[in-house]
Amino acid sequence: MSRVPHLVVIGGGFAGLWATRALAGAPLRITLVDRRNHHLFQPLLYQVATAGLSAPDIAAPLRHILGRQHNAEVRLGEVVAIDRQARQVRLGDGSRIGYDLLVVACGATHAYFGHDEWAADAPGLKTLDDALALRRKLLLAFERAEAEPDPARKAAWLSFAIVGGGPTGVELAGTLAEIARHTLKNEFRHIDPAAAKVRLVEAGPRVLSSFPEPLSLKARRQLEKLGVEVLTGAAVTSIDDHGFTWGDTHIPARTVVWAAGVAASPLARTLEVALDRAGRVRVQPDLTVPGHPEIFVAGDLAAIQQDDGRPVPGVAPAAKQMGSYLATVIQARLRHAPAPAPFHYRDQGNLATIGRMAAIVHLGRLQLSGVLAWWFWLAAHVVFLIGFRNRLVVLLNWAVAYWSYQRGARIIFGDADSGAGDEATPPFAGMHAGDRPHTDAPP
Amino acid sequence: MSRVPHLVVIGGGFAGLWATRALAGAPLRITLVDRRNHHLFQPLLYQVATAGLSAPDIAAPLRHILGRQHNAEVRLGEVVAIDRQARQVRLGDGSRIGYDLLVVACGATHAYFGHDEWAADAPGLKTLDDALALRRKLLLAFERAEAEPDPARKAAWLSFAIVGGGPTGVELAGTLAEIARHTLKNEFRHIDPAAAKVRLVEAGPRVLSSFPEPLSLKARRQLEKLGVEVLTGAAVTSIDDHGFTWGDTHIPARTVVWAAGVAASPLARTLEVALDRAGRVRVQPDLTVPGHPEIFVAGDLAAIQQDDGRPVPGVAPAAKQMGSYLATVIQARLRHAPAPAPFHYRDQGNLATIGRMAAIVHLGRLQLSGVLAWWFWLAAHVVFLIGFRNRLVVLLNWAVAYWSYQRGARIIFGDADSGAGDEATPPFAGMHAGDRPHTDAPP
Repeated sequence: MSRVPHLVVIGGGFAGLWATRALAGAPLRITLVDRRNHHLFQPLLYQVATAGLSAPDIAAPLRHILGRQHNAEVRLGEVVAIDRQARQVRLGDGSRIGYDLLVVACGATHAYFGHDEWAADAPGLKTLDDALALRRKLLLAFERAEAEPDPARKAAWLSFAIVGGGPTGVELAGTLAEIARHTLKNEFRHIDPAAAKVRLVEAGPRVLSSFPEPLSLKARRQLEKLGVEVLTGAAVTSIDDHGFTWGDTHIPARTVVWAAGVAASPLARTLEVALDRAGRVRVQPDLTVPGHPEIFVAGDLAAIQQDDGRPVPGVAPAAKQMGSYLATVIQARLRHAPAPAPFHYRDQGNLATIGRMAAIVHLGRLQLSGVLAWWFWLAAHVVFLIGFRNRLVVLLNWAVAYWSYQRGARIIFGDADSGAGDEATPPFAGMHAGDRPHTDAPP
Repeated sequence: MSRVPHLVVIGGGFAGLWATRALAGAPLRITLVDRRNHHLFQPLLYQVATAGLSAPDIAAPLRHILGRQHNAEVRLGEVVAIDRQARQVRLGDGSRIGYDLLVVACGATHAYFGHDEWAADAPGLKTLDDALALRRKLLLAFERAEAEPDPARKAAWLSFAIVGGGPTGVELAGTLAEIARHTLKNEFRHIDPAAAKVRLVEAGPRVLSSFPEPLSLKARRQLEKLGVEVLTGAAVTSIDDHGFTWGDTHIPARTVVWAAGVAASPLARTLEVALDRAGRVRVQPDLTVPGHPEIFVAGDLAAIQQDDGRPVPGVAPAAKQMGSYLATVIQARLRHAPAPAPFHYRDQGNLATIGRMAAIVHLGRLQLSGVLAWWFWLAAHVVFLIGFRNRLVVLLNWAVAYWSYQRGARIIFGDADSGAGDEATPPFAGMHAGDRPHTDAPP
């Protein structure tokens, strides 16, 4: 076999996977490294967290996606460092993989703005594991409230806060309000789930601030109609396991969710290049790292501006576009052809769902809200799910959920002992098969 | 409200749930206590472990099932002791629940026959958490094999053993062989998954020994056709994380699964009544505990004989029949009517699936094997799933899996770092939302 260049792609998200697939026919050996075995359809992650979908509904094994792409292989592992000089990436198990070309597309993680101590009491939502932990936390809060005799403590268990009024925060707040008002109806005897307080807290003046102001206001009104209390204009200044402080007001809440900020993967630092304030790599117009034409950065990890000077947003379409674009750059190089024009982000519009029959859509001059926007959002997501074999299952789950108000994945994994405050203990302690015997019911 | 008797049901499995539902109209206050929030369709648990179904496909929230049964409430919690004198059950959080009538139906757990040290290396399959941990272990073994350069170690990662030739062991072995030969085809570059060794180890002379010998032999032949090596006639005498000893032969295997024995829930001991060798409660013909007509034991926890002297088997139909039966006993008492005839187990036949298009059926004088038996098994399970809203989804998953050889739930949760031997670390360490930042890809 003649020596073909080795491309290492770090991350099987939209950017990394789209780049890999676009290079299917190229004279390259590609190794896609991810610390998870699946590609995740992140836009629907909140549905897993709120028990509407099963985890496998929105994830597909990377090996399966790339099974028939003969120039690609998948390596399950965590890249802990990039050595630009040796042109190697180092994995968590100590092994090293040499590269001729490198794509760094390992995304973003939660950022607590210097308050990492909040992480324990206000978990975020970036991975399937996050989603399952959050589902457990949300469902257990109602169980705790049901078992709690003291009225004040009961109310605190029924008090939920989502910090951050971006798309994830809005989706979570709207869906949680629907669960409390509809899904859990009739199921409890000592609480009224509909009495649960769901608060969405945004430091800025309005929610969904990436949308035009009128749509943003409509979103707020739709949230309020669903039963969400929207708090804007002051930042959260403290969080602990009994509540949070918003401005000067302390609000009791046993369940706080963090949807307020993201920061680039810390792997970016090992590149030893200029980063922006959020830790993202300032890339060249062709998505390479300055001085290193063999290293590309794409997706949420890349800091690059649109033609009008605004940053390219950290959304799935942008990541896919970057992945496809850098593949054209690599293909041009392999053919010794001229480099393509600089990366240009095509804004395909902006959608946010709020809850049952509530969404907003911003598409050029088109602005929609309410039922029509929700149907638009639904259609768009079903189309985007193409390629996932679960599309039909997802649709079916949605249809059932829609007509019945039920949510099929309302399963608490792990031991659900009723002692309070067990969020501090491993939620999946019960997963250590063999640690101790399991029974289906109390032993 | 006049004082109505309080019935506490421990366990939301088939026995406890069927008893509770049969008492929907009775002048009783019912509290169903379970340490999990869901009823589990246990006969399909192996499908979750082998990534054919999502966990929520085979589980339904107890609160939802009982939402409209106004004389029943659900309490999430773990019963740790029964106080016969005070007529109270004690929960793990210290609270106590008084009862007038008690149904103990908390099932069985794995038994390692005095070798509890095997539990860590040979996990069993009783709960959804077990199933997800096992799924992770099975899928990761192929990943480890792919990354392992040493041929002997590679082979050990591709060596699987299922200990126990009962229905669960047979189902797991057959499905795992199918995964290795078909599902994972084309997906790896450094191993041939079809070269994986799947061994089913049974101490007795034949697999599925509850079936007539000719069917048992047919099952063995079907297993072998699927690629399973069946070892019978000698017991496993040691298990560690590198392999196991069968009789005098040491066989390297990084993945051993325990399907060999069950024991009654340890809660039975706190009843302080006569137990059989497996720790089950020897119940009266009306399923009550000797000397305690207010305490019923049902399901896998109850030791009772059929008319011919054989024990009632620990299967779902028996548990349902016990649950329904004891409800009639309670209803007769409430009406001051004569007690019903003693419990009589109606054997509805015996089914075992082996793999793709392979099963055996024993129904009175009818004995089937092969394709026809498999269709029979499929139809029976779809019918039994009635009541689960996921029936359609399950069917769809099966149809897709059947035609594509794919398995939709092939997702490894938790960090999948490629260091070997991490079965010893919490598989769901990544679930502690907030312990540390998460990324979708290597940070």
